[in-house]
Formats: sequence, C-alpha cells, structure tokens
Amino acid sequence: MGSADYAYPTAANLECAHRVAIPPPQPFVKSLKYSLKETFFPDDPLRQFKNQPPSKKLILGLQYFFPIFEWAPRYTFQFLKADLISGITIASLAIPQGISYAKLANLPPILGLYSSFIPPLIYAMMGSSKDLAVGTVAVASLLIGSMLGKEVNATENPKLYLHLAFTATFFAGVVQASLGVLRLGFIVDFLSHATIVGFMAGAATVVCLQQLKGILGLEHFTHATDIVSVMRSVFSQTHEWRWESGVLGCGFLFFLLITRYFSKRQPKFFWVSAMAPLTSVILGSLLVYLTHAEKHGVQVIGQLKKGLNPLSFEDLVFVSPHLTTAIKTGLITGVIALAEGIAVGRSFAMFKNYHIDGNKEMIAIGTMNIVGSCTSCYLTTGPFSRSAVNYNAGCKTAVSNIVMAIAVMFTLLLLTPLFHYTPLVVLAAIIISAMLGLIDYEAAIHLWNIDKFDFVVCMSAYLGVVFGSVEIGLVVAVAISVLRLLLFVARPRTFVLGNIPNSMIYRNVEQYTNTNNVPRILILEIDAPIYFANAGYLRERIARWIDEEEDRIKSTGEPSLQYVILNLSAVGNIDTSGISMLDEVKKITDRRGLQLVLANPGSEVMKKLNKGKFIEAIGQEWIYLTVGRGCWSLQFHDSHRKTKRQER
Amino acid sequence: MGSADYAYPTAANLECAHRVAIPPPQPFVKSLKYSLKETFFPDDPLRQFKNQPPSKKLILGLQYFFPIFEWAPRYTFQFLKADLISGITIASLAIPQGISYAKLANLPPILGLYSSFIPPLIYAMMGSSKDLAVGTVAVASLLIGSMLGKEVNATENPKLYLHLAFTATFFAGVVQASLGVLRLGFIVDFLSHATIVGFMAGAATVVCLQQLKGILGLEHFTHATDIVSVMRSVFSQTHEWRWESGVLGCGFLFFLLITRYFSKRQPKFFWVSAMAPLTSVILGSLLVYLTHAEKHGVQVIGQLKKGLNPLSFEDLVFVSPHLTTAIKTGLITGVIALAEGIAVGRSFAMFKNYHIDGNKEMIAIGTMNIVGSCTSCYLTTGPFSRSAVNYNAGCKTAVSNIVMAIAVMFTLLLLTPLFHYTPLVVLAAIIISAMLGLIDYEAAIHLWNIDKFDFVVCMSAYLGVVFGSVEIGLVVAVAISVLRLLLFVARPRTFVLGNIPNSMIYRNVEQYTNTNNVPRILILEIDAPIYFANAGYLRERIARWIDEEEDRIKSTGEPSLQYVILNLSAVGNIDTSGISMLDEVKKITDRRGLQLVLANPGSEVMKKLNKGKFIEAIGQEWIYLTVGRGCWSLQFHDSHRKTKRQER
Repeated sequence: MGSADYAYPTAANLECAHRVAIPPPQPFVKSLKYSLKETFFPDDPLRQFKNQPPSKKLILGLQYFFPIFEWAPRYTFQFLKADLISGITIASLAIPQGISYAKLANLPPILGLYSSFIPPLIYAMMGSSKDLAVGTVAVASLLIGSMLGKEVNATENPKLYLHLAFTATFFAGVVQASLGVLRLGFIVDFLSHATIVGFMAGAATVVCLQQLKGILGLEHFTHATDIVSVMRSVFSQTHEWRWESGVLGCGFLFFLLITRYFSKRQPKFFWVSAMAPLTSVILGSLLVYLTHAEKHGVQVIGQLKKGLNPLSFEDLVFVSPHLTTAIKTGLITGVIALAEGIAVGRSFAMFKNYHIDGNKEMIAIGTMNIVGSCTSCYLTTGPFSRSAVNYNAGCKTAVSNIVMAIAVMFTLLLLTPLFHYTPLVVLAAIIISAMLGLIDYEAAIHLWNIDKFDFVVCMSAYLGVVFGSVEIGLVVAVAISVLRLLLFVARPRTFVLGNIPNSMIYRNVEQYTNTNNVPRILILEIDAPIYFANAGYLRERIARWIDEEEDRIKSTGEPSLQYVILNLSAVGNIDTSGISMLDEVKKITDRRGLQLVLANPGSEVMKKLNKGKFIEAIGQEWIYLTVGRGCWSLQFHDSHRKTKRQER
Repeated sequence: MGSADYAYPTAANLECAHRVAIPPPQPFVKSLKYSLKETFFPDDPLRQFKNQPPSKKLILGLQYFFPIFEWAPRYTFQFLKADLISGITIASLAIPQGISYAKLANLPPILGLYSSFIPPLIYAMMGSSKDLAVGTVAVASLLIGSMLGKEVNATENPKLYLHLAFTATFFAGVVQASLGVLRLGFIVDFLSHATIVGFMAGAATVVCLQQLKGILGLEHFTHATDIVSVMRSVFSQTHEWRWESGVLGCGFLFFLLITRYFSKRQPKFFWVSAMAPLTSVILGSLLVYLTHAEKHGVQVIGQLKKGLNPLSFEDLVFVSPHLTTAIKTGLITGVIALAEGIAVGRSFAMFKNYHIDGNKEMIAIGTMNIVGSCTSCYLTTGPFSRSAVNYNAGCKTAVSNIVMAIAVMFTLLLLTPLFHYTPLVVLAAIIISAMLGLIDYEAAIHLWNIDKFDFVVCMSAYLGVVFGSVEIGLVVAVAISVLRLLLFVARPRTFVLGNIPNSMIYRNVEQYTNTNNVPRILILEIDAPIYFANAGYLRERIARWIDEEEDRIKSTGEPSLQYVILNLSAVGNIDTSGISMLDEVKKITDRRGLQLVLANPGSEVMKKLNKGKFIEAIGQEWIYLTVGRGCWSLQFHDSHRKTKRQER
C-alpha cells in the first residue's frame, strides 16, 4: 500500500528515514546563561555595544540612559513649532487637571502644579517615548488618598500626610527604577489587557462617585471608596445638598462632554476639548468672583502660594511607625502608575512605528518620581488623556513636555492668585468628564465576544474595585489571570488525531471533520508541557481515551487496538513528574497489550527523556519524527507481518 | 521544482489542498460544561452509572462510596490467611510507632494506640487501596506539635492542648473530605514529586534532630524545629546529657538499622525489620524493669490507661480564641497527610495494577479523621513505612487493617501495663531509624541529573524545612514550583525551523543539525500558549529574530527575506492580549515589507483568531495546514512570478 501515492514515502526511503535527534548535550552553565538571558534580556540591549571602540561605547551608553542626546542633535525648527503648539495645549489641560487630581489625593492643590513642572523636565531627558505627556493621574491619586487616609487624617494632620505622600512617591520611584534596573519589567505584563480595562473602568467609576462630594457641595464625606459606603454617605445627608453647586457642576459637565463629543467627531478640532477644562476654570472663577457665590455654598480653591517647587528632601519620613504604609502605598501605586505609563507609551509608539524599551522607561519614570519626591511633587506618570491630546496636537519629541513645564512655571510664578475663586465643583466636573472616557464598555463587549475568561477577569477587576477597593479589585483580577495560566497547565487539552485524506497529515478530528480514523492506531495529542501539575491528570485522561476507544471499537467491530501514538509536538517541556507519568502510561499500555509510540518530541523533551532513561525503556525505534511516518511505518510492518503469515 | 520528488505535492494537488478549518461554533454553555467536566471530573466517575436500572444504580453507588461491598462478596479464605499475617505484622510495628509519634506531637502516648484502632476500621470500609496501612505519621505529628505548641503549652495546659489536637484533626478531616466532594483533588498535584522528596527529607531531618532530646535524656528542650535552635538548645546544656540514655539509644538504633539493612538485602525476611521495633520495646522495657534504670536518668513512658477509645466529640473546641489555630493546623496538616496517603496508595496500586480514585480516597481519609477526632484519635493517614511492610507481608485487601485494629484493641484492653517501663530512648531510636529511610538522597541526585529546576525546588523545600520551619519549606517549594509554571508561560521558547533534507518536514535547527535553510523564508515556532503574560515578550522576541535573520542575510548575501512563517502547532490557546500581539507582529512585518504567514493553528486558536477578526486581517490564504505546505506554496508562487517576469 501507499507506494503508488505521492504522499507516502517508499518503504526503502523510510528505512533510511531520519530519526528523532537527541540534541547535543550542553554544559549546564551555558544553558543556564541562555535561560537567564531570555528571562531578563529578551530584547538584547547590549547588542549595539558589540565591537565598538570605548569612546563610541561611552556615547552609546549616555544615549542609552539619556535618549535626549540621541535626538537633540537632529532637532529642527519644524519640530520646535509642532512641539510648541502641543506643549501649550497640554499645559492648558495640565493646570486644571493637576489641581483636581491633587484634591482627589487630599493634597494641597498647588502640588498638582508642582508635579507638572519638575517631572516633565526629567522625563524629557530620560524617556524614550516621543508622545508621552507627563503628569499626575486620577487612579494613583485616589489610591494615595485612600491608602494614606487609613493611616493619617489629611485634615487633622495635613503636614504629616503631605510628608507621607512625598515618601510614598519616593518609594514608588525606587520600586519603578529598580524594576527597570533589575530587568523585571515583565512583572508589568502580568497585568493583562483585560485586567487593565476592568480596573480602569472600576477606578473611573469610583473616582466619579467621589466627585459627588464636590458636585453636591457636601462638607462631610466617607473615606471609603466602595459604592455602598459612598451611596450611604450621600443619601444620609440629603438635607446638606447645595443646589447652587449642583447646577453649576451639571452645567460645566454638560459643556465639557459636548466639547469632547464634538472633538471626537471632528478630530481636526481636538483643541476644542483640550481647551475646554481651562475655559471652564476661567468661566467658573469669573462667575464666582462676580456673583460672590463662595458666600452661598459654592466652595472655592482659595489661596495658592506663589513661587516654584520648594525642596522637600528633608520631609521624607524614613522612620516608623508610618514607614510601612509609605512603602506599601509606594509599591502599589508605583506599579499601577508604571503599567499605565508604559501601556500609553507603547500604544503611541505603535502608531508612529518606533520602539520603546520597557525597562528603560521604568528607569526614566522611576527617576522622575524620585527627583519629584524631593521637589514637592507627588506620583506622576504618563496619563492617557493628556498623552492623547499631545499626540493629536502633533508633538514631535519630548520637547512638548519641556514647553508644558515652562508654561506651568510661569503659572506658578505669576498666575496662581487667579485660581483663588475657582469653584471646586468645576474641578469635579473636569474629573468626571475625564473619567467617563476611561469606562471602555466596548472593550468589555469585545472581550466577551472573543474570550469569556478574559471577560470574567475584566468584570472581577471592575466589581472588585467598585464594591471592594482598588487594591482588592487588582489582587482579584491578577489572581484570576494567574489561575488561568495555572489551569491551562493543570488541565491541558488532549485530543484524538485523524488522517486528512490524501496526505500524511494528521489533525484534531474535532477541528477537521473530514479526517479518517487509522485502523488499530489511537493517536493522541497533548497541547501543553507535561509538568507535575498535570502529570496525574494526563495519566487518567490518556487511560480514559484508551478505554473509550476500545469501547467504541468493540461496538463497531473494527480490528482491535494495537498502538497508541502520543504526539508530543506541542509539549514544550517535561519535568521529572512528567517522565514518571510517561513511565506509568507505558505500564498501562503494556498491561493492555498495546505498544506506546511517541511522535515528534522537541529538543528539551528529548533531552530529558534521554536523561531519564525513558528512551531506553520505550526503545528508540518507537519514536518517530512525525505522526504520519509513525502511522505509515506501523501499518507497513503490520501488513508485512500479515503477508508473511499468509505465506507460511 | 519539487514535482519529481515524492515528498512534494504536485501543484495541481496543492491548489485543492485542505485549508485550516475554523472549528464549528459551539454554544457557550456546551463548551463551559466541557471545560468544567475536564477540570473537575477528568476520570468521568459517573460513566459506569449510565444506562443502568435504578436498583443497580443504588448498588453501584453504595459500592462507590463503600468499596468493601464490592470486594467482600469475593473474599476467600486464602485472602484471609494472607491478611491475617500482614495485619499482625503491621500491628507489631503500629504499637511502638504510634506511641513514638504521639510523643512527637506532645500528646499522651495512649493516643497513638487509639489512633491505630478506629481509623483503620473506617478506612477498611471506605478506602479503595488494598495496601494502605492506616496510622499516624511523623511529619504530621511534628507539625501538630509545633503549630499548636505556639498557641498552647502542652505541659502547662495539657487538657486544652489535647482538645485543640482533636479539633485540628476534625478540621483536617473536613478539609480532606471537602476536597474530595468538591472534586478539588488536583490541588494535591501542585505538590510535585520534587517538592515531596525535599520536604520529606527535611521533615525527617527535623524529626531526627528532635529525638536528640530523648537520646540525650534532656528535660528541657526548645519548641522550635529549625536546626539552629535545636543545636543551640542541645549544646547549651552539655552538662545535662545522660550517658546511660545515650548508650541505650545508640545501641537500639544500631540494632534497628542492622535489621533494616538485612531485610533490605533479603526481602524474604521483611518480618525481621518489621518485628524489630516491638522487639526493641520489649527488650528495652525488660532492661529497665530489671536494672531499675528509670531511677538512673532513663525516662520511661509510665502509666498507660487501660480501655478502648473514650468518646471525644464534646471535647472539640469550636469557639474563639483558639479556633483559628485549630483550623489553620487542620488545613495544613490535612493537606500534607492527604498528599502522603494518596501518593502511597497510588504507588502500590501501580505495582499491583489496579486503579485508585484520588477524590474517593480523599473522602475516605477525611471521614476517617472526622470519626477519629470524635473518638480520641489524632490525625491519621497512610504512612509509607507501614504500608510498605503491609505490602511486603503479602496483604490482599483492607482486611489487614481490620486485623491490625483488632490486635491494637487487645493491646488496649489487656496489655497497656506492659508499656510502663518502656524507655523513651527506645522510642527515639525507633523514630530515627524510620526517618532515615525518608531521606532519599538518591532521588535528589536523580533530580539533579534530569532537571536542575526540580532539584532547586527539592533543595529549597529541604533547606526551608531544616533552617526555617515545616510550613516555610512547603510554601517556598510550592511557590517556586508555581513560579516555574508561570515562567514557562511568561518566557516561552521560540526557535527557527529548517527543512529536513528530502522531506516536507520542518524542525528546530538546533535539535536537527542537518536541516537546510529555506531561502527568503524565516520559519519560527512558538512552544507555549500566547497569553497576556508572554505577549509582550513574544512581540520583542519575534522582532529580534527578524532583525538577526536580516543581519545574517546581509552578511552572507543570500536573497533577501520575504516571508515570516509562524508555526502555531504548539500554541494551545490564545487570549485577547495574544491576538493584539499578533496584530502588532503583523504591523511590524508589514512595515518591513514582509508577509506574515501562519501554519497549523489549533482549533481553540483558530476560533479566537476568527472572532478577533485576525483571520480577516491577515487573509485566510496566508494560513497553511503545515509549514511544509506553506513553504512549498510560497516558493512555487515565487518561482511562478519569476518565470512570468522573465517571459515578459
């Protein structure tokens, strides 16, 4: 059989066919080095340094840590014009947003301006993204507020609270920079896209709920962030609601949303929505100033100190009892801010087709926060909204960040008195309108359509944040994501392969419905590495496949089973428990009078099987290069045997 | 080209070649049901109930939960004879071991005898192993002693301590039975073979160290279990060492080790080592009785109460403040005892070729401990040493456990006064000799040879137990094992494939050194599912492969790269982050003027790619059934195009 068909190798050819190779043994140190390199240096950052003279190496190293040295020499006047426009645009957004988010963190509003001055300058020198606009973000601000608020009351002890915020920022910077230096950037990868979608939407919901305080002009408000506490707090004091505040708030929110909608429909007019917050602030302040609304229940920002960032290095708190809280807050907010910054940087780099080195970005963001914490700034990163405006405004390089910093500097030096009458309710409206854009329900629907498990992760992050707290949501979502990975390994899928007609290709019978069974041979494929976590399951499952196949054969009266082929193509690795499992499967098949056959074990698997003496146990003649060759050879031998028997 | 060679399909044939099938859509509920079944019912326990009349179903159900109904009707006199011998043999081991291990847990020695009476009877009815001999185990005893000892001092408040031990046993039983009922047996799989080897050796070392108290006749001893504390405790009181005790202990230890060595060399004389502990107890007691050594610094067991197990249901403590400790102790010791019991049961079932249902065993062991906790027993499971003796003695069914229980019953009713003069040092010698067998250094060497990572897991379990505590060792080892799974997914290996001469087979060029490059085509294989945890890495790595290949081509002057084939054979699944990653890779290749081609995506992957619109994006004509067909088709088209160009 088969010799007439092109797809079957001739018997003569088969005899000299290639065997599955046992890869040449590698010294332990070499393979360890390779694994470490792949784990920590997958992007091979030192490649460009190879074979270069020392002076060139120095320059390359400087350019590596300070990308500004790389692009500054090529900077043109055209670039400057573009960066000037985008820089001023983002500054107009940065000033009201900075003040709003600082309020969210229960910090003095002026800190929001400080944080838009020094950190962008640092990032402009060290960052590798051309589009990232540096500034504070709502989620991290809220987290700082809720985590530090548990330890110190911001109204009772504002000084200690402020110092703790600087300390937390310092540790966030240290964590971020260390992750970069230790090449542990991949930890951020464990925040999957689904987790981030759910987490961001949840945080946005929570932040919006917090704004009810400002919109309704409430004086007392819960420190909890979950929806139940907030609703209880709001509805337990209906008599305190201020209609003046509410009307003002809803009016400005409507204005902001309308401009956003307009800019979305007409991307050319991106500046309409970018300018809207500053316009609202100016309008709101004028309104209050003219109507003396601050005396009728509309709260205002009040006095803002003139002048640039004071140094705050001596304010950092490195002693108990608050050190642990500061470290914990820094760790969590640092990682979250990092995830946002890197995701945003990567997205825009993708649009413009340049490359961003995650670990380098971490060092840049970390340094920016360490320096920030010493100059009266709190946690900054690359917020999505501001970076999107920056991108739309046509920024060319990180110079737009420098322009923004200069604009903020002028504001700090000259314009702070103008914010005296800015009503808090306008800030609340600005925050809400920014947050609504973060609730990406379309992404959630997309997740549901493609991958139900990702949807579950997303929803658990959302519900965890909204009904529990930001940390709970995050931990639950990451735990479920990791559980999924573990489940994938613990319960790999196994399936039966069948022959695709007129070929030597064998494929999953459920995926390819036109496949044919191979008489007397059961072909199984395992689609995950064989590890301790699944060794027990696979043994049971393979035994059950054999049972089921024998039952089926009995009922149809086909020739009885003789061979079980395990296709190991998709088995990436095997550990000692896995080898024991194969030993046991061999015992099971031996007991039933079946021959176990392996197909296409990969290099790692082959190496381990060889060391574990399994190849000796099964015999190398029962290991084939492909399922097709295995089947052909087994059938050929069978027919050969049969012919011989008939001859006798 | 190619048409003359058998291995290449003809062009005509290729045109009608099979495409990669998109599996038929499945309703969500059906696929969810399938996943749940594979996760929780991989062994399909209900299969035998299918198509049976109700009365038969009842009998099958009864036999399912009480396997004794299955084998009892077929029980023969031959079996009884064998079980009688093995039952008496294990009883002679159970009595001294039970007393020793109870001392290890700081519990009254009589509890060791109680625990060898009721639990074996329960197990004989419910257990599905024929070889497991039920009893207390050293590691769990030590753990109970150290965990409860932190909360309550056993000498100051013996009653509360005892009650807590019962309560912990109760919760251990509840945990074990629930794991079985909830079909969560696979949690035990996460204790890999390597973890267990290291953990057992560490626990054995710790238990041996604890015996220095008995051997040296010390009165005061540390409650800590780590080697540093124990050594400090031993050498800080050298003046308290009792030479009488030491000589006696070493003598008996020597005797026990010699008999064990003998029995190992001559398996026929297994009973020599099985009887040795009881012989030591009798000899030791006689020696003390005759020489009045108890008055010269040799501590003895003292008064043992006559009579069977008193009920202890009312002693269970279900109120604060000690409830949490009891639950925690129960949880940890329960899982560890379960792991040992099931591993032992499975090993012997493997030898005798019968099948053990892990979840059913959990229910049996759990019930046995729940009942035990109400009848003055503490945690029992299937110890390896005792079960091995049972197996060697030729036991046929669980009746050997019943025989042992009856022998222990007689001891309790009549023989307890005989143990009055038994010296503690003999018990210490018995424990040490049993423990030395658990230090399986050969297994550790085996792990080092086959899999370095497993060796690291094993050693960290060992060192964690010896230098930290039993819990620390366990947590560290499980964490490292799980980290390995995560690392496997986070850093999958990717490799270049080459053509195996005279075939359409493409394999890893590092494993098969005789492969040929395919001009203009780079073929990459990914050997893990594409998930959020590795999406970022894979994007970088694929980009780097392309870079390196283009560098190589530039230096050799080969024809430039045109196609990148991703072989997805080993990609078992993909999530939404993975689909985005493929989108990004497509952008990268498009930008460089390369065509991305996929080969052999599996059914799950194909389904997700279809839903995620990636198939539309790439075009179904660029997805091939195998790498071979892909390469052939691409080369054919190229040569076709070239010919056309030449014709023009």
